[in-house]
Amino acid sequence: MAEIKKINHVAVVVADIDQALGFWQDALGLQLHHVEEVPSQKAVVAFLPVGDSEVELVKPTTDDSGLAKFLAEKGGGMHHLCIEVDDIDAKLAELKQKGVRLINETAQELPGRKMAFVHPKSTGGVLVELYQII
Amino acid sequence: MAEIKKINHVAVVVADIDQALGFWQDALGLQLHHVEEVPSQKAVVAFLPVGDSEVELVKPTTDDSGLAKFLAEKGGGMHHLCIEVDDIDAKLAELKQKGVRLINETAQELPGRKMAFVHPKSTGGVLVELYQII
Repeated sequence: MAEIKKINHVAVVVADIDQALGFWQDALGLQLHHVEEVPSQKAVVAFLPVGDSEVELVKPTTDDSGLAKFLAEKGGGMHHLCIEVDDIDAKLAELKQKGVRLINETAQELPGRKMAFVHPKSTGGVLVELYQII
Repeated sequence: MAEIKKINHVAVVVADIDQALGFWQDALGLQLHHVEEVPSQKAVVAFLPVGDSEVELVKPTTDDSGLAKFLAEKGGGMHHLCIEVDDIDAKLAELKQKGVRLINETAQELPGRKMAFVHPKSTGGVLVELYQII
């Protein structure tokens, strides 16, 4: 059975990275690791490690993504919770077998990581991302 | 300056603890530490450690709390992000000095912990709880 490792990150959708860093970095005191454009998410992401997890501030760079719709509808806020596992393929198979509704039935593979999303309908309203470092 | 320690927990408001555990414990595979009535929050809370943080499933026990209103309006989901610090009084003073809007200007003290909430207007839409183990 695939093992749960930790909360990899909590993703927060924001309209303006610099303004958000005014709170998360300058006021609250998290360290900013780096800011990076992430084309696969159509977003710019600021990575702020905290403990063995991260807060990720995510600004959509197009108008047509789920992130952009979330921002337009809700004005920003917590978007998803990412749980890191040691074997995402095994975990997805377990979840499917248990009747959990998956947004991605197979993991998307990107350099260094594999990821898939679980539908909020199955989690009590939370968009859950599964993540494996490879 | 007060030090940030970790994400203490992510709180998820749910309509039914057992149903939510069907995903978070039985399907996803988090361990359930315990379920407890928390009168100060007017809620029953299931505590599920993951890495050095926790997922907390929170079911309101009355109709008049902020948690109950969140459940009624949104049907559940991620409610707040709790950041643990080593000195909550110092951190609240820093935030206030930097113009951050606080829901609690002084920390509430309960057995073993002190806590205060930061207003989502100052964080990019996230209800942030500050927390100190005492």
